[in-house]
Amino acid sequence: QHRTDSSIDVSSLFGKFIRSEEIDVDLKSMTSREHMAGTNNSKRHAEYIRELWESTGALDSVVMESFDCGITRPINTIIELRLENGTLVKLDLAEGTIDSDATSQLEDELSAPAFHGYAAAGKVEAQVVYANYGFEEDFRLLKEKAKVSVKGKIVLMRYGKLFRGLKVQNAERAGAAGVLLYSDPADDGFVRGDVYPKGPWRPDSSVQRGSVLYASQCAGDPSTPDGPSVHGAPRVPYSEIVGKCTPSIPSAPISWKNALPILRALDSAEASKPAPSKSFVGGLTDSSYGVTYRVGPSQIRVSLEVQNEYVLAPMYNVLGTVHGRIEPDRAVWLGNHHDAWVFGGGDPTSGTATVLQILRALGRFRELHPSWRPRRSLVFAAWDGEEYNLLGSTEHGEMHASTISASVVAYLNLDTAVAGHEFSVQGSPIFTELVKEIVKDVKVGSSGSTFGGNTVQDKWPSYEKFVKLRGYLPSLGGGSDQVVFQHRLGVSSISLGFEGSHGVYHSLYDSYSYQANVMDPTFEYHEAMAKVVGMLMLRIAEDRVVPLGIKSYAHFLSKELQELEMEIAAAGSIFLESSVLKAEMKRLGASVKNFGDAEPAFHDLTLSAGSSSVESPLFVRELNDRILLAERELLVARGLPGRPWFKHAICAPNFATDYGTEIFPGIRYFLQGDRSNATLAAEEVALVADVVQRSADVLNRLDVIQ
Amino acid sequence: QHRTDSSIDVSSLFGKFIRSEEIDVDLKSMTSREHMAGTNNSKRHAEYIRELWESTGALDSVVMESFDCGITRPINTIIELRLENGTLVKLDLAEGTIDSDATSQLEDELSAPAFHGYAAAGKVEAQVVYANYGFEEDFRLLKEKAKVSVKGKIVLMRYGKLFRGLKVQNAERAGAAGVLLYSDPADDGFVRGDVYPKGPWRPDSSVQRGSVLYASQCAGDPSTPDGPSVHGAPRVPYSEIVGKCTPSIPSAPISWKNALPILRALDSAEASKPAPSKSFVGGLTDSSYGVTYRVGPSQIRVSLEVQNEYVLAPMYNVLGTVHGRIEPDRAVWLGNHHDAWVFGGGDPTSGTATVLQILRALGRFRELHPSWRPRRSLVFAAWDGEEYNLLGSTEHGEMHASTISASVVAYLNLDTAVAGHEFSVQGSPIFTELVKEIVKDVKVGSSGSTFGGNTVQDKWPSYEKFVKLRGYLPSLGGGSDQVVFQHRLGVSSISLGFEGSHGVYHSLYDSYSYQANVMDPTFEYHEAMAKVVGMLMLRIAEDRVVPLGIKSYAHFLSKELQELEMEIAAAGSIFLESSVLKAEMKRLGASVKNFGDAEPAFHDLTLSAGSSSVESPLFVRELNDRILLAERELLVARGLPGRPWFKHAICAPNFATDYGTEIFPGIRYFLQGDRSNATLAAEEVALVADVVQRSADVLNRLDVIQ
Ligand SMILES: [Ca+2]
Ligand SMILES: [Ca+2]
Ligand SMILES: [Zn+2]
Ligand SMILES: [Zn+2]
Ligand SMILES: [Zn+2]
Ligand SMILES: [Zn+2]
Repeated sequence: QHRTDSSIDVSSLFGKFIRSEEIDVDLKSMTSREHMAGTNNSKRHAEYIRELWESTGALDSVVMESFDCGITRPINTIIELRLENGTLVKLDLAEGTIDSDATSQLEDELSAPAFHGYAAAGKVEAQVVYANYGFEEDFRLLKEKAKVSVKGKIVLMRYGKLFRGLKVQNAERAGAAGVLLYSDPADDGFVRGDVYPKGPWRPDSSVQRGSVLYASQCAGDPSTPDGPSVHGAPRVPYSEIVGKCTPSIPSAPISWKNALPILRALDSAEASKPAPSKSFVGGLTDSSYGVTYRVGPSQIRVSLEVQNEYVLAPMYNVLGTVHGRIEPDRAVWLGNHHDAWVFGGGDPTSGTATVLQILRALGRFRELHPSWRPRRSLVFAAWDGEEYNLLGSTEHGEMHASTISASVVAYLNLDTAVAGHEFSVQGSPIFTELVKEIVKDVKVGSSGSTFGGNTVQDKWPSYEKFVKLRGYLPSLGGGSDQVVFQHRLGVSSISLGFEGSHGVYHSLYDSYSYQANVMDPTFEYHEAMAKVVGMLMLRIAEDRVVPLGIKSYAHFLSKELQELEMEIAAAGSIFLESSVLKAEMKRLGASVKNFGDAEPAFHDLTLSAGSSSVESPLFVRELNDRILLAERELLVARGLPGRPWFKHAICAPNFATDYGTEIFPGIRYFLQGDRSNATLAAEEVALVADVVQRSADVLNRLDVIQ
Repeated sequence: QHRTDSSIDVSSLFGKFIRSEEIDVDLKSMTSREHMAGTNNSKRHAEYIRELWESTGALDSVVMESFDCGITRPINTIIELRLENGTLVKLDLAEGTIDSDATSQLEDELSAPAFHGYAAAGKVEAQVVYANYGFEEDFRLLKEKAKVSVKGKIVLMRYGKLFRGLKVQNAERAGAAGVLLYSDPADDGFVRGDVYPKGPWRPDSSVQRGSVLYASQCAGDPSTPDGPSVHGAPRVPYSEIVGKCTPSIPSAPISWKNALPILRALDSAEASKPAPSKSFVGGLTDSSYGVTYRVGPSQIRVSLEVQNEYVLAPMYNVLGTVHGRIEPDRAVWLGNHHDAWVFGGGDPTSGTATVLQILRALGRFRELHPSWRPRRSLVFAAWDGEEYNLLGSTEHGEMHASTISASVVAYLNLDTAVAGHEFSVQGSPIFTELVKEIVKDVKVGSSGSTFGGNTVQDKWPSYEKFVKLRGYLPSLGGGSDQVVFQHRLGVSSISLGFEGSHGVYHSLYDSYSYQANVMDPTFEYHEAMAKVVGMLMLRIAEDRVVPLGIKSYAHFLSKELQELEMEIAAAGSIFLESSVLKAEMKRLGASVKNFGDAEPAFHDLTLSAGSSSVESPLFVRELNDRILLAERELLVARGLPGRPWFKHAICAPNFATDYGTEIFPGIRYFLQGDRSNATLAAEEVALVADVVQRSADVLNRLDVIQ
């Protein structure tokens, strides 16, 4: 056992302690009540998690902390159609009971109908216009091709393709008075396949809740942009948050069942224009529904009333620790959010139950091996307020920035563990080899079972399509609790889950019944995730030399730089003709090369540290810290253009692609559209060249600080 | 030898290797030419330092780095008096040759006459008004009591009491068109004692150069407020720097010899008002000069023309490293700036020569003990551009923020080593016990010699007057290269020097001859400084448990909080009546108490780590890192009100007192004058309560991140 300083190879033994039937039972109990952030149920849920964690026997300590964060607590949503004869027809916003879905019976007890977090409160009555997905391009087509004005209208858009907050923002910028977002069956309903309860896709009455806060502008609690939401902290008043962080116009989500009369009204209005592009056409075209997706304006008017209340509500995070035996001051984190929009069967509680199983397994393991402790500390976090705006994790990260920066080796994020059957992972390139190693060895089920006795690698389509081709993992985006760790504090982070055919996102039907009846009846996918994540965490905590690979990072930088070069070459003459840009790109190329050149020697050092004959705790620590610092040095103090809170120069969340990622975000900011600017792009290139070189210097120990 | 893991007690043996005669020789050779930042001489000087450092044999590596920083390179200064008959009398700005001062013979070769760094270029001719030291209060007295308007005038002020940049800023705000600053003999000339060459005080023709940049507004290179001045970095154009970072009105420094005709003109003008306060009266009142310090306006006009050129000029830092044997990834730094306004006999080259002597001694030591290496790394830095605005150190600190934060245990600053005979030290309270221990043991000279065989403690008047009474060192202010380390990056820092009767600051006469003939003929004060600083550095580098004491920090926080409470009690009813402020002060009190309560247990842990039987490298490392982190956690990401670049919540530079310090600066910002605001003060109290608690948590290992 040379890889660790333990006689037990916990990471490979660990899997045997996972019991999928427990995940089943835990998931059921933890999704029996709604547990939305900012409600008493959320506090109860957090306390329940704390009790459960304590009961596993895995942890040395469990604490609960809270941050008072600004949210809009929903009161009610009222949507009415004012027909041509003047009658008001109120839409029934209930999603409805499904017999085989136990918790759907409890819909009457929910705190509020489906709503948007951070929607502007207000009442508006206006004609409707349909704007497809709500891209800037969709609005341009409406204006210039269909010649339809959005001003003062209620804009109906379909979910998908880009972050919902941006849809509302684009509508607001076009002059809309209000917004309705609906789930079109072409995107996640019957056009994709069987709908729930028969299959995984979204039924007609199902609604997608969600936050409309402009997450790239405002991170975490919008009332505390400059620091943690501690007692007495300076607060930005709500009046300054609206319009800057959140929309000024009311918005609400509806089902396609409720969108249908509106779409029909758009079709039948005399003045309504045809769709300016085929891309506007959704899935309700067949004879059963006969919608042609005309864009309006409608003749009828729609009344939208959003009632909510801005409050500072406590967000409850639960944190559990296993103190490391040799390096207690270095920690591996596993985070999952516990707050859900409704019952959270998949999102997030499939993750919560999976983390709990990892703890149960660890508890069993520790009972059998009482003298064992991980080399490094393990920290488990159950975050609150993620659905609103990653509130619990962000405020915690802002508060503990110094210590996290000094001591966290890696942050693993497990939001929804199972929402499909395809293994999906995004992360810092540094995790590539370790993930490949682990998924090769995790085999679940047997022939005939859902997982079929396959390895997780077998269930990872991206492996062939991306990872093997490129040599690194898909990069980490936004949309969950890794943001403050990776994009603000420069902690190497990774996010995992099973994804795929899934349509009940953020609705009543994201429930235990859905997970147990449709998504993962044998809980083998949950089991697989528990094993992969548990092994990942334990490998990073146990290996003497932190098993995070610089080589993949070097490869990533090199390939991504090539892509950037091609993009710049195609971006237009102002870029091709800029000598400043050319000079800085040359320097960036040199830095990336230096980073790559530093790797082999560093790798050799880690090999010599690995073999016990050369082992010396501080020698190994010094090398391992360089792996941490290599990622930390990629931060720029000034932050990214347009969003200075975000500090990582290499990657950032890309909201224009619905939780995707953006590489060299600062540089790309100045490459397209209105912001095209070769000089400013060159400055961003210089900043990236500088941080990459510093990162290389850390590896090379050329950095004189060493 | 239990305190370290070496068989040699280098810190106590080290002193024997110090040779004061070498400091003498080195000082002479390094001050033979002017070496101002942004000139070729500065580069040559840096290269010379690098060669000298390499020749000592002490260092494993020496590198030179450069940053292109925005400075105003001086071209010329022309000051003329337009007499009533219209004649123009040009002032001779030369300071003049003094026979016994060798380098004063070279005045003709200097790059420019005395000037202000970052002065606004321009020409102004106007009547003169005298505004004493240039406090806001002085301008108020002028306006309301003397009923004299400053608008469109050239304001003559005397140096002293507050940072020169603030004098110019206050004049500009009062509507002045230009500024002349002169050195009044009451402040640092004949009123204080014998003037040079007979004694240490300022002769009549001597001029004080210096920067007028608003250092609290703009740190380091004013063209790169958001990050390091790396190649291609985004730059703020000069037009946006003037008025924001630097004055918009021209200013220049003059001697009292040149101020005299102006003061006399003020006295003789019919419309000239008497001084509104006795505080306006300087030292030229006796019959020889007969100045009454009337405030004007003068009848004559003065023409001030400042010619300079804003350029990006390279700043050359030299960095030398001795790699630590056991903990190479922890470092103790010793910094000194190498750029001078002219020859820099005292400022800074007495420090440069002292650092060089420390290296020479270390080289001799290493030759005798070739297997010895310090436990932790030693890093020596010779900074450029300090005089302009701490340029070299600040840009370096901004560039290497991550690694410095991760690895620097302490930063020691030695600017001017000898400018008087009183030992002076300011620093984080954490250094208190160590400094007391060291100064007790450093004895220099013999009875009859300048130092007299006394200990450095004997030469430390503040010891009895402050340190013994309060239990901690005077806090660290601004004005030299510790700023980026202590106030931005949260690295425990300390600044030392001998101060006292000294009047040639920033003039031609701050020369080798001055140091050797008047200030320290036997170089015993230089020797004492070399020993104290060397021992300080080596103790921190060698001791197994970092010898920086939390107890003094706890004591400091507790006492300073009491003072703050008294200040608030006296600040007015809005503060006494604020329940929010009361609540937050209570929480701050609780945090401070928690910090104090954490200390004994932490201390016991360090004791057990100290004794070799419990020694385990990572155990000790974890404890030592808590000492670092305790200081780091005192940073607030949002920075201080009005100056967000400054991040330390506990102390900051206080420019209103000429390089002094301010404790709880964020809170105090809202306690006085126009800014009085109990609600905002309460918010700042909350931020401080939060960081102090986090610091306590680090010590207590309650912080779950551990
Ligand atoms: Ca915040
Ligand atoms: Ca800068
Ligand atoms: Zn989620
Ligand atoms: Zn979600
Ligand atoms: Zn100096
Ligand atoms: Zn100086």
